[in-house]
Amino acid sequence: MKQLGKQTWQFDSRPVIIGSAAVVGPEEGEGPLSSDFDFIFDSLEMGEKSWEKAERKLFEKSVSLALLNAGIEDKELEFFVGGDLMNQIISATFAARKVGAPYLGVFGACSTSMESLAVASMIVDAGGAKYALAGTASHNCTVEKQFRYPTEYGSQKPPTAQYTVTGSGCAVITRNDGTRSGPVVTSATIGKIMDLGLKDPFNMGAAMAPAAADTITAHFRDTGLSPGHYDLIVTGDLASVGLPIAKELLAKEGIPMEQTEFSDCGLMIYDRERQKYVIAGASGCGCSAAVTYGHLLKRLKKGQLKRILVVATGALLSPLSYQQGESIPCVAHAVSLESGGEQS
Amino acid sequence: MKQLGKQTWQFDSRPVIIGSAAVVGPEEGEGPLSSDFDFIFDSLEMGEKSWEKAERKLFEKSVSLALLNAGIEDKELEFFVGGDLMNQIISATFAARKVGAPYLGVFGACSTSMESLAVASMIVDAGGAKYALAGTASHNCTVEKQFRYPTEYGSQKPPTAQYTVTGSGCAVITRNDGTRSGPVVTSATIGKIMDLGLKDPFNMGAAMAPAAADTITAHFRDTGLSPGHYDLIVTGDLASVGLPIAKELLAKEGIPMEQTEFSDCGLMIYDRERQKYVIAGASGCGCSAAVTYGHLLKRLKKGQLKRILVVATGALLSPLSYQQGESIPCVAHAVSLESGGEQS
Repeated sequence: MKQLGKQTWQFDSRPVIIGSAAVVGPEEGEGPLSSDFDFIFDSLEMGEKSWEKAERKLFEKSVSLALLNAGIEDKELEFFVGGDLMNQIISATFAARKVGAPYLGVFGACSTSMESLAVASMIVDAGGAKYALAGTASHNCTVEKQFRYPTEYGSQKPPTAQYTVTGSGCAVITRNDGTRSGPVVTSATIGKIMDLGLKDPFNMGAAMAPAAADTITAHFRDTGLSPGHYDLIVTGDLASVGLPIAKELLAKEGIPMEQTEFSDCGLMIYDRERQKYVIAGASGCGCSAAVTYGHLLKRLKKGQLKRILVVATGALLSPLSYQQGESIPCVAHAVSLESGGEQS
Repeated sequence: MKQLGKQTWQFDSRPVIIGSAAVVGPEEGEGPLSSDFDFIFDSLEMGEKSWEKAERKLFEKSVSLALLNAGIEDKELEFFVGGDLMNQIISATFAARKVGAPYLGVFGACSTSMESLAVASMIVDAGGAKYALAGTASHNCTVEKQFRYPTEYGSQKPPTAQYTVTGSGCAVITRNDGTRSGPVVTSATIGKIMDLGLKDPFNMGAAMAPAAADTITAHFRDTGLSPGHYDLIVTGDLASVGLPIAKELLAKEGIPMEQTEFSDCGLMIYDRERQKYVIAGASGCGCSAAVTYGHLLKRLKKGQLKRILVVATGALLSPLSYQQGESIPCVAHAVSLESGGEQS
């Protein structure tokens, strides 16, 4: 591993994602990426007695499918790096308990998807593991209940609000010894906390946009690359309000984002015309995880994409910090992925 | 870095702790380790309007003192690896916001102290940073309010209950290039989730003891060392109920713990004879952090100890998982520290 600039790790061994899984709920299963998911639950309850137990089931399902797709057994997995949005990241803990692997709990709100992938890739690249798993999950009803109001309460939302994805995504990463093929992880840029003083928990996109722009700027400053190096740069999840703000901030920084396709996971998983209840778009750690490990990895494997940069954003507020009048600290972590695991 | 067995990382470059700080509240300041702390607040309020703001102040104070003791400026710090017990680890996030460094949030309940040190050491050892900070904090009143009852409610506790430390500990780690001296981090053993079905949140020591025993057993299996390699093995925090259980479990595993001194941070920070309100002993991520970064590092620097193994334990429950009848998943992470940063 090499440190580039201050915030970026270049993984010289190019760790390979040998298996991944994306598992979602019924609403995501009705969206445009439906055919890319490994499993779609047909109800939000998933046969469980509480929303929290449903979220755990979702996470456990994507862990077991990722291991199956990787062709390894539970006991071969060496490190489980995961987190979620629940207080004390209890869903990740229960999923790690089930699989029995050494566990590193991480938290970055919706940026957990790329935080866990960056840490798991570092472990593998540094020679600390043969197999590591990175994963996260979110459930619409657990998040609404914990951060806002229980869904059953039926409260209305402003047009800037986003809709938490019911979904989980996991990836199994291994050393690139030339025997296994798959998309490779080439670098990670770890973000700083950005907090411009916004306080509205119903407008996460605007709060998180500066964090996304800051991490993208740091990535290009540290690596010396330009956006044209990538076929796609995708944030997760700024949605319809945040993405234009990030574009404006990057333009001010002089980053030529027009060289590439620049999109957002929060605008990809639902059909906003048809699924109007998602308002500004999707959010939740399950969103960028399911879009990356379901949709984007499949496009990399098919050769439709060669190089992508996934920039997962997190709004690191707690209900209590909001109630106490604090602004919303945000962060974004970027991971670059390439097709093909042959070259080293 | 080398992987030993399945769960252990050996840090070949021997990252150096060039500065650390332990900051505590008034009750810890009256305990037997008082003279080893860098700063003692004289009230639990710390001049703040809420317990959460006080916890943040505690964390921010130990970050700034650790950087001062390390002789580096805020802007030189490359990665901030931290977490705490608050929902969405908001205290770590605010502390990272203040210092402005790239931020990796981690969560392992009271094991966060050694989880963050293991991850920060890996980053430095793998060449991912020149300077990384590991830290955590807890405040008695925030934890009581969030996990049990607000202190003001005056509820009584059973004799197995532990008392959450008001404290924060941080360490600044750097590459061992021979120019800086200080205690070195030699290895880390990452624990698995252990859950034997205990459900009593007022008896964390008993719930966490199997995790401590499992990680200690894994450490010796992976490294081929025996307990006599260390002058001291210290868990954090099993307290008076959990430590004897861990001893019994380790005896059953055939680990000869009688070769060394085996103690617990939860039994070191208060004078249980005089401070009877701590009942079974101390807990909270601030406990093992303040004991390690205050007391133990000073003993390593003075040459009173040569090699120690700190095994931080975490009870990964949430108030909601407890209310829903779940048992308490636990984990323990061990980090070995040696005096002197000269040899490589």
